[in-house]
Amino acid sequence: MRATVIHAARDIRVEDRDDPTIIEPGDVVVRVVAACVCGSDLWPYRGVRPVEPHAIGHEFVGTVTEVGDAVTTIAPGDFVIAPFTTNDGTCQACRHGITSSCEHGSVFGGKQDPYGHPMGGAQAEIVRVPDAEATLVVVPGPVDDALVPSLLTLSDVFSTGHHAAVSAGVGPGKTVVVVGDGAVGLCAVLAAARLGADRIIAMSRHEDRQRIAREFGATDIVATRGDEGIDEVRALLGGELADCALEAVGTKESMDQALRVVRPGGAVGYVGVPAGGPELPMSFLFGKNITVAGGVAPVRAYLPELLPDVLSRAVDPGRVFDLELPLEEAAEAYAAMDERRAVKVLLRP
Amino acid sequence: MRATVIHAARDIRVEDRDDPTIIEPGDVVVRVVAACVCGSDLWPYRGVRPVEPHAIGHEFVGTVTEVGDAVTTIAPGDFVIAPFTTNDGTCQACRHGITSSCEHGSVFGGKQDPYGHPMGGAQAEIVRVPDAEATLVVVPGPVDDALVPSLLTLSDVFSTGHHAAVSAGVGPGKTVVVVGDGAVGLCAVLAAARLGADRIIAMSRHEDRQRIAREFGATDIVATRGDEGIDEVRALLGGELADCALEAVGTKESMDQALRVVRPGGAVGYVGVPAGGPELPMSFLFGKNITVAGGVAPVRAYLPELLPDVLSRAVDPGRVFDLELPLEEAAEAYAAMDERRAVKVLLRP
Repeated sequence: MRATVIHAARDIRVEDRDDPTIIEPGDVVVRVVAACVCGSDLWPYRGVRPVEPHAIGHEFVGTVTEVGDAVTTIAPGDFVIAPFTTNDGTCQACRHGITSSCEHGSVFGGKQDPYGHPMGGAQAEIVRVPDAEATLVVVPGPVDDALVPSLLTLSDVFSTGHHAAVSAGVGPGKTVVVVGDGAVGLCAVLAAARLGADRIIAMSRHEDRQRIAREFGATDIVATRGDEGIDEVRALLGGELADCALEAVGTKESMDQALRVVRPGGAVGYVGVPAGGPELPMSFLFGKNITVAGGVAPVRAYLPELLPDVLSRAVDPGRVFDLELPLEEAAEAYAAMDERRAVKVLLRP
Repeated sequence: MRATVIHAARDIRVEDRDDPTIIEPGDVVVRVVAACVCGSDLWPYRGVRPVEPHAIGHEFVGTVTEVGDAVTTIAPGDFVIAPFTTNDGTCQACRHGITSSCEHGSVFGGKQDPYGHPMGGAQAEIVRVPDAEATLVVVPGPVDDALVPSLLTLSDVFSTGHHAAVSAGVGPGKTVVVVGDGAVGLCAVLAAARLGADRIIAMSRHEDRQRIAREFGATDIVATRGDEGIDEVRALLGGELADCALEAVGTKESMDQALRVVRPGGAVGYVGVPAGGPELPMSFLFGKNITVAGGVAPVRAYLPELLPDVLSRAVDPGRVFDLELPLEEAAEAYAAMDERRAVKVLLRP
């Protein structure tokens, strides 16, 4: 099969690899229908962190081709959504819905599964899924191909935006500022609108992303940052600060922006992968009673709530994909996102 | 009148000062019935921070002697509880119940009130209270003198313990670890019990404090710290970590302990005044989805809920006072707490 491998910074290749097969009885093998590139894939691509060559990609949907002996709830032919992390469904973290912190979890495109076998990347033709019954969600078929992009966002980006909103306590009556206009930030706007927020202010400097933000439910756009951005938020909110901020970038600057746009007693829901250790300023948090919540999105736990709204077309998060390429052009997908020529790129094997 | 003044580290003197009087129409003057020394008063006492000589103390209850022209809901003779911060009751923070972040707030023993007048300290015979109608809570009289210690804890220490518990989402079904066995930590135990927690593990190495913790509702005591303490918590909880941790110290070590005793998706409610900037480790929080909430307790907002339980004797937080001294012996009160000869000292003018 063909699979995307990152060899070094800015060195993405699609190569031949052995077809994944069932190893453990709880495994399922999935033929990928669609995968995509994540903002967090750009960290190794940009050389922010050292890279050892490995199969990359952690978001995919596809069709089951083979199931292990212990698998009874998933069958060949099923269309499945794969959360970007696998989970066993039984540990303390899983029982509390934090499937992304599963004691026996792993991540697609990571090193090993809990049984010591290598994990495959999602930007590939075929993927083996360990602990498949606890991890995968079957979409009742037949699946309309037009829904594939939105179903794919459930594997990470929309579920992650939802996690930011849930973590910050977004709901009716709340004013929300979204920091970050990448695909996750835009999905956070959509999630906040879905959860009934009163005002949703998207901080974005890019016209194309501002347009998607508005389509997703942003009531206001703030194109400035720092103190100027805070002043604009205040002006929009009648001189006050927001109840909630959703941080979807992961830099010190973006977290600082999020912390400073919320009112005393407000909450920051953050899902941006911390890049370079933006440690949180305790004295500032203490003085303003700001709650900080979030982390790696427990996608699997959210799918029963989010999937029906995608299937009913109540939400259309797939609009974050503004470029679709064949898997063979994965390198161009990375370049397009790196150069901000695309918000998010969908790959079709 | 007599008032306690800190001149330098370990230099506490009770001195003559002019009697406070009404300055602004919203002021009230209170004759102090009881005041006390706070763990946070020990920071300047120990010279952790540089000290300029100033009137000290921020916890008191007392009897109103004089009211300003604009004051209609408080009258001379009323017994009042003073939250350690004053608030205007109208700003965005106050409207959201974060009275401790009031835009026009001040703290007893601090520099200035919102009108530019000097603030008095609470370890004194008489205190002027600005914005008194929004700040003070009148206790329906007559007040039983035996209740004075518990009423006094409402001005800070019990309300602060309650804030830690509320911030961490303590409630029925929850397992809770309390880090810190000072008066606030002990009150956090009591608050967690009052809120219905299933298990309350107090981390304490001092027998006298362990005893109070048990009386306040701790189901278990862990006398070790660090990794050993975490192992003990796990052993008590059937191999698992706690849902909530209440941090009531404010050092890097105590916050680290609190962060590491909670399960993925758990919450740390913190009220320890951050000493020396224990910045929060983002990557750790991110990976485990740990919520961090808390800060300066909005005492005023909690009093309508907590006062009735003190008046009905459903709770007896006044038991944290294990030493009572005349105001004139304030220096000895500080020394006793500094040397851990007392958990918390009540001062009677």
